[in-house]
Amino acid sequence: MTRETLYLFDTTLRDGAQTHGVDFSLEDKLLIAEQLNALGLDYVEAGYPGANPIDTELFSEDRNLGAKLTAFGMTKRPGRSISNDPGFQALLAAKADAVCLVGKTWDFHVDVALGISCDENLAGIKDSIEAVVALDREAMLDCEHFFDGYKANPDYALSCAKTAYEAGARWVVLCDTNGGTLPEEVHAIVSDVVSHIPGDHVGIHAHNDTDNGVANSLAAVRAGARQIQGTLNGLGERCGNANLTSIVPTLLLKEHYAERFETKISPETLGTLTHASRILDEMLNQAPNRHAPYVGEAAFAHKGGIHVSAVQKDPRTYEHVAPETVGNVRKLLVSNQGGRSNVLAQLETSGLSVAKDDPRVGRLVELVKEREAAGYAYEAAEASFELLARRILETVPQFFEVDSFRVMVERRHNALGELVTVSEATVKASVEGETVMSVGEGNGPVNALDNALRKDLGPYQTYIDDLELVDYKVRILTGGTDAVTRVLIESRDGEGRRWFTVGVSPNIVDASFEALLDSINYKLIRDGAPAPI
Amino acid sequence: MTRETLYLFDTTLRDGAQTHGVDFSLEDKLLIAEQLNALGLDYVEAGYPGANPIDTELFSEDRNLGAKLTAFGMTKRPGRSISNDPGFQALLAAKADAVCLVGKTWDFHVDVALGISCDENLAGIKDSIEAVVALDREAMLDCEHFFDGYKANPDYALSCAKTAYEAGARWVVLCDTNGGTLPEEVHAIVSDVVSHIPGDHVGIHAHNDTDNGVANSLAAVRAGARQIQGTLNGLGERCGNANLTSIVPTLLLKEHYAERFETKISPETLGTLTHASRILDEMLNQAPNRHAPYVGEAAFAHKGGIHVSAVQKDPRTYEHVAPETVGNVRKLLVSNQGGRSNVLAQLETSGLSVAKDDPRVGRLVELVKEREAAGYAYEAAEASFELLARRILETVPQFFEVDSFRVMVERRHNALGELVTVSEATVKASVEGETVMSVGEGNGPVNALDNALRKDLGPYQTYIDDLELVDYKVRILTGGTDAVTRVLIESRDGEGRRWFTVGVSPNIVDASFEALLDSINYKLIRDGAPAPI
Repeated sequence: MTRETLYLFDTTLRDGAQTHGVDFSLEDKLLIAEQLNALGLDYVEAGYPGANPIDTELFSEDRNLGAKLTAFGMTKRPGRSISNDPGFQALLAAKADAVCLVGKTWDFHVDVALGISCDENLAGIKDSIEAVVALDREAMLDCEHFFDGYKANPDYALSCAKTAYEAGARWVVLCDTNGGTLPEEVHAIVSDVVSHIPGDHVGIHAHNDTDNGVANSLAAVRAGARQIQGTLNGLGERCGNANLTSIVPTLLLKEHYAERFETKISPETLGTLTHASRILDEMLNQAPNRHAPYVGEAAFAHKGGIHVSAVQKDPRTYEHVAPETVGNVRKLLVSNQGGRSNVLAQLETSGLSVAKDDPRVGRLVELVKEREAAGYAYEAAEASFELLARRILETVPQFFEVDSFRVMVERRHNALGELVTVSEATVKASVEGETVMSVGEGNGPVNALDNALRKDLGPYQTYIDDLELVDYKVRILTGGTDAVTRVLIESRDGEGRRWFTVGVSPNIVDASFEALLDSINYKLIRDGAPAPI
Repeated sequence: MTRETLYLFDTTLRDGAQTHGVDFSLEDKLLIAEQLNALGLDYVEAGYPGANPIDTELFSEDRNLGAKLTAFGMTKRPGRSISNDPGFQALLAAKADAVCLVGKTWDFHVDVALGISCDENLAGIKDSIEAVVALDREAMLDCEHFFDGYKANPDYALSCAKTAYEAGARWVVLCDTNGGTLPEEVHAIVSDVVSHIPGDHVGIHAHNDTDNGVANSLAAVRAGARQIQGTLNGLGERCGNANLTSIVPTLLLKEHYAERFETKISPETLGTLTHASRILDEMLNQAPNRHAPYVGEAAFAHKGGIHVSAVQKDPRTYEHVAPETVGNVRKLLVSNQGGRSNVLAQLETSGLSVAKDDPRVGRLVELVKEREAAGYAYEAAEASFELLARRILETVPQFFEVDSFRVMVERRHNALGELVTVSEATVKASVEGETVMSVGEGNGPVNALDNALRKDLGPYQTYIDDLELVDYKVRILTGGTDAVTRVLIESRDGEGRRWFTVGVSPNIVDASFEALLDSINYKLIRDGAPAPI
């Protein structure tokens, strides 16, 4: 049986960025876009060029993503021609594979919000789509408030969608902008739409305001839509967008979808889903949802003797899919064995080969468990994990040793009577038997410490000259009786390689220092720095 | 049109208590049961008498709840008679209005887990239900793995359900124990069940493992089931149970349900839903899900100038229901995407009244924009926003002034040769014309600075004695040429009030200091501390 193609459209970086408290940097956006592409998404909508400097910069050069990089914008302004609308021109100038335009399809909004006639709105949709198509870009129309519009005036809502399709839009996307539509309504309305527009040109954009974001997306697919828009982890304003992290595994793992549909996501890339989900949370500096379907830490956690022993006999007794399929792990809360397969998988990723039954793997599993209980997060700090593993599996040279450090931050009035703050750090280290003392200044205590630490590492200096701190994240964990601080550092070198390290301590400076040391040691090992004589 | 009755069954205190880390005391259970009753739930399943001392005690006396207090247990043990099964006798002795028995309906489980014949299992169901009915209690059967069982052997699964019904069970509840069934499957299977058993004796018990817990419950109702089992906030093991906090408002507020069905929940009690949801989180000592449908803090939060001004004109433009209906409130976020309307709305929330066209509003809008461009995030730091606004709109007393501070973090070997890190801070401040110098130690530089700053603020000391730092978040922003650090601090006082403040600086200590000062000043103003003489 030939399977129909379903297209997956991610808008984490555009609609997801509307979320309260979410603030992506350009670096964040490029990194997440790469993750989404690796997962196998068809479209990555990355921003609204012209709306803010970061999005404008993102679309100012070719990103060669693989997945279709999509720019978001509005249909042309009422009363202006395409050539006379600077916002629309900025959108046309964006280096994007596809352009997704949002347009009004609810007659009430056309009247009240735009203040134009319904026909004028149709003409605006037509002109805007044609202008995108004329530049050989893939065009799509996000039909704002489509379901509410359809309920109020089905003919007009449909005529907007048809106008876009006839003007050459590759996709007409039906948006449940307020998120209040229920699955049975979505099914009925999409069924009608696909009797006018071929389903393989119809998409669904659902929100989660009634807790039906996923069900609405699936209902639209069953009714004939063939593109799904959503976000990783269901990120999005209010109650979030349709959660692709839940939808994707259902499409691949549930028979009656998998038999009928295919996507660009393979069983292998599906195995990276949990990782992609956690990385996004780390980037947003927020705790992952333990109870998230498929990817949550508790999604395959079993408590209580009966469940645990049943699962050990046959996991299907209390698991609807196998956790490995989405890169998650089973957690048996009585006798925790979940760690081992996870650790083996990470070793493979790091290129460290070791026999499954090697006793050192057991020691590493114990160590990782212990340290994660203390606050370390190796999921997000692969370089620190690799260092830890190498220290167990092989001999890692002690390139240098830090005997002590001191950091001082002082705010005072300078000679001109202005308030200034200075940060200064001193580090005392031993390199090849010699004591080296360095002092550094910086923006803040960690920067000063970093500068002092990297000022003079003797023969190793050349290896770290191109090392650069890209990002620095801090989280306070209140697991036990005392709060500890977890610091995640992202580093980069001259060749553009990036790696993450982690440090944990009640003291933020200590935690930062640990992550800094890991970053330097990781680079020295990876670049084959010789052991000290 | 007469409406059919839908019955709501809450199992927060029984199935919800299976969640990892959840541990209700007897007082917790009684308090939550009272909330659920006040809300208008029909059944409150409160525990498993005989399984643990708390549940046994709970069912040892009449609780006169109002809602039907329900005891949970298993059908009688295979190979024993009712009178010879101590566990079952304990259940019969429980002072409960209703008894919900879980029984197997998947032939594979009957064989493998119970090790008895299918007929023996049917007889066990019959005897158990009849024993409950004989004591004049309402009986129900939770059909474990019903949907998986039905897919494997529909006749047998149905015969279990029918046996219970014919033995006098008020309800036969179809459980999707693994949570892997999809809405269209639930609809088809429930449709078949209600052709054998009247729908007003059929219930649904869904889990959220595919993110369809709510949709599955609604699909069952559309297919004819008339009892819904779920939990408050979707509490429950793995990915949680069907979320009643999402289902209940949909049933009452969405026309095509409200027209067809009635429940014991009234518009008035629906208005307590948000409160009930938050109270449960508080009891569990966990942060509420900001993005929860209907009751989340962000469920009616609007960001971005267009959305905000549209919502102010007509809330229906971006709200599918009115927030008051569920006891929630609208939030118009101050952010760089919004402008004047956001700021005005925020002023109103803070209780600061000012005319729309007051020129000071324009100055405040400009200031907010400027500072957000520099990295401040007022949408997440309402207390800092309020301070900023008050400084523009009125005169805020300068309670004290910090002239200088110095923070030192030192890592060195102590006398025992161990590596230790110490943090120490000194602060020099002027309070009512007097210079005060204080020194403090701490876990890290910010904690030390906080301790020093709050050691002696003269006459203001009593106002801040109960001020406590709850959370501390750090983000590095790489917007401009230089990275800046944004610190968000959450504070709490003795009365449980919480507020957020923000600080931004290239130096993390400076940024933290700014947020700390805002927090103290906010508390002094709010508690009406007098201006210095």
